[in-house]
Amino acid sequence: MTDLDKVLARIDADLPAALDRLFAVLRIKSISTDPAFAQECQANADWHAADLASIGFEASARPTPGHPIVVAHDRSTAGPTALFYGHYDVQPVDPLELWDRDPFEPAIDTLPDGTKVIRGRGSADDKGQLMAFVEACRAWKAVTGKLPIGVSILLEGEEESGGANLPGFLAANTAELKADIGLICDTNMWDPRTPAIVTMLRGLCGEEVIIHAADRDLHSGFYGSAAANPNRVLARILADLHDDQGRVTLEGFYDGVPELPDSLRAQWATLGFRAEDFLGVIGLSVPAGEAGRDALEMVWSRPTCEINGMGGGYQGDGFKTVIPSVASAKVSFRLVFDQDPHKVRAAFRAHVLARLPADCRAEFIEHGSGQAIRFPDDDPAFGKARQALSDEWGKPAVFIGSGGSIPVTHMLKQSLGMDVVLAGFGLEDDRIHSPNEKYNLESFHKGIRSWARILEALAK
Amino acid sequence: MTDLDKVLARIDADLPAALDRLFAVLRIKSISTDPAFAQECQANADWHAADLASIGFEASARPTPGHPIVVAHDRSTAGPTALFYGHYDVQPVDPLELWDRDPFEPAIDTLPDGTKVIRGRGSADDKGQLMAFVEACRAWKAVTGKLPIGVSILLEGEEESGGANLPGFLAANTAELKADIGLICDTNMWDPRTPAIVTMLRGLCGEEVIIHAADRDLHSGFYGSAAANPNRVLARILADLHDDQGRVTLEGFYDGVPELPDSLRAQWATLGFRAEDFLGVIGLSVPAGEAGRDALEMVWSRPTCEINGMGGGYQGDGFKTVIPSVASAKVSFRLVFDQDPHKVRAAFRAHVLARLPADCRAEFIEHGSGQAIRFPDDDPAFGKARQALSDEWGKPAVFIGSGGSIPVTHMLKQSLGMDVVLAGFGLEDDRIHSPNEKYNLESFHKGIRSWARILEALAK
Repeated sequence: MTDLDKVLARIDADLPAALDRLFAVLRIKSISTDPAFAQECQANADWHAADLASIGFEASARPTPGHPIVVAHDRSTAGPTALFYGHYDVQPVDPLELWDRDPFEPAIDTLPDGTKVIRGRGSADDKGQLMAFVEACRAWKAVTGKLPIGVSILLEGEEESGGANLPGFLAANTAELKADIGLICDTNMWDPRTPAIVTMLRGLCGEEVIIHAADRDLHSGFYGSAAANPNRVLARILADLHDDQGRVTLEGFYDGVPELPDSLRAQWATLGFRAEDFLGVIGLSVPAGEAGRDALEMVWSRPTCEINGMGGGYQGDGFKTVIPSVASAKVSFRLVFDQDPHKVRAAFRAHVLARLPADCRAEFIEHGSGQAIRFPDDDPAFGKARQALSDEWGKPAVFIGSGGSIPVTHMLKQSLGMDVVLAGFGLEDDRIHSPNEKYNLESFHKGIRSWARILEALAK
Repeated sequence: MTDLDKVLARIDADLPAALDRLFAVLRIKSISTDPAFAQECQANADWHAADLASIGFEASARPTPGHPIVVAHDRSTAGPTALFYGHYDVQPVDPLELWDRDPFEPAIDTLPDGTKVIRGRGSADDKGQLMAFVEACRAWKAVTGKLPIGVSILLEGEEESGGANLPGFLAANTAELKADIGLICDTNMWDPRTPAIVTMLRGLCGEEVIIHAADRDLHSGFYGSAAANPNRVLARILADLHDDQGRVTLEGFYDGVPELPDSLRAQWATLGFRAEDFLGVIGLSVPAGEAGRDALEMVWSRPTCEINGMGGGYQGDGFKTVIPSVASAKVSFRLVFDQDPHKVRAAFRAHVLARLPADCRAEFIEHGSGQAIRFPDDDPAFGKARQALSDEWGKPAVFIGSGGSIPVTHMLKQSLGMDVVLAGFGLEDDRIHSPNEKYNLESFHKGIRSWARILEALAK
């Protein structure tokens, strides 16, 4: 029986205890976007520091101007090193009434098809995913007393809120954090049977705009049409972001966006992706983006602009004939290839200012930015990780793109000069950022086993 | 000393007690749009019924499918009769943080220029205005034991929430409520020195639209651009409501909207209206409506379309990369001359449906409608009321238009065959429907005296 076999057996036997630990961390309301939950974020960071220390890591929750960052090291094994990244913060839970249970009281549910899932906010994004890695380390230490390679762990607390403090933290701690390869868990499998490594990630530019007009809310009977209405101004600004072919209209937006290389298009064509399945699970049927593009291209290799939130005036029950003094919107751009997030932000602001009528004023709030990224999937580390995943799942792992942005990936590359293996066990139907988020029990269990295998593979 | 002189003296002496009564009713949170305040609406109706009974009216709070309607009669004096209309419900108070004091803890504030104002939600709209009439009746009864004419009083509890139950109530009680003339208090003076009777009122069509797409909120990284975004769909719908000249684009919207008659335009030109003053008090400077129209025309005699509220997706602190499953807007149209509210509503719905992409569904909620109205200001009752107002304020009262809609005015004309004298003592800067609503103490005091004079004038 090899060490790996013993470790995998230990993982199987220890699953109930691993679930107890995951549930403990899922109960912590670490909503990073809302200042009211700052204490819970601190508690969550402290929990991880204590847990990692109990495995033998040198671990601490380091203060930042925002929420803490957990750093842990166990580099007692000579040879290759890896830096694992995860985030302990979670998305807000509203609308709360759409949850079938308390988002912070996790439980195992059984779906109609018999699938067992871990239900709760953060179960998939990202607490379940990061604990899968931690449990793999725990098993190696328990069985062999050491890890196969040197491991550092970095757990961020502001991934869902713009991550303003991570770049400075990485820059200030480059020597401590640098490793041969990065490992990030915040991604999905291709499907419930097929593991995947993401080698192509979209970037992000998040922006909030607030339109101000009169110095107070007005009665629309007395002032209607004579007074500037921020709702109307904002609707025009937002509507003009796309043309009638679904293309984004910002000046220079498509600079640095080539057509998809034929080789990649050919590889993706083998995946058997069906837009009707992808959209069908969420109650839709027709790709809503650029005319003439297919849905996989839209979400993996084309830039987008989405209005994530907008609001102004009276939104309660009934009706109120008011002209509001302000209206606001949160807009995000997903970026691909060489698009520059700073140029996109500047173009958005110019777009807004060009549409401001007399008596209106625009205020802008920046919400994070990261460039798109592509990794060299012919590098040996990627081959080793791919083989380890294929061994665990009994099916060849695939290299894919991802529509989601993980700004830290770019930072690890830029600040620390590291390539990153993005391997996660989430699924399309995990409802992350939505009510009733879940993480399949199998994702968690086989995720732990997968990381145990990857750690060993990277040592070879 | 005439009876009128005695009544006016009594009003002056009784002002402190009248304010106590007004404050008692201002403390009742009669927000009709929010079902959570239904009990308070009932309590407010009961308060008025008891108060009117104490003066000698036969009064009761009558149940409706919504909030009660108060009806009171004192027709013991033979001769002409009047039906007075007011509403005891108030607008919601959000955003609460913009109020300088509790909206339901009224108080007398002194403005920097020495003006004394009654502060509180409903002080101007409409509790202060309606109590001015009630106090005039109280004074006549106290001094002479009777009213100069037969009076009925109707107090609605759903004016701010669509008024769904009033038409049925009027239709069911026509014989009981019919009088020679209607009196409505829900209007403004021309300026703080110049009393006015409104003879031209815009109509209203209120509508809510909810756009539905996916069956859950989505992560914009995974689904961005592939999934329909209700915010984007709604922004397009709302932006397309106006063309680049500020005209409303709905099919047939301007049917029944003539140019302003030259005679009226000439009369309005004498008012000395200045757009920069009208807009200046609210921090604006440029009329925002149809190109080539002046501001007075925009608010009195041109139809408008305003987005009173809109919202979708994440609107809290920070950022959430979500594609919402729904987005919604509340839109109102102010109507003039012969515009048909039902045709406008149908045209709006057609406008929405024509802009719905695949996978999106629109839900509509109707929020009240009323046609525009114009009264024959050469009728003797209008002349008598005008003279009474001129006597009280020492300055000729003027016949004006109003941008606000008072649907009941049309109902009284249609259901009961009555013309209506619209005389109120509100001012442009009363901040009705806004935080820190106020009613000038002089509006209240001289308002009571004005109604005492009008009651006597109508008896002649």
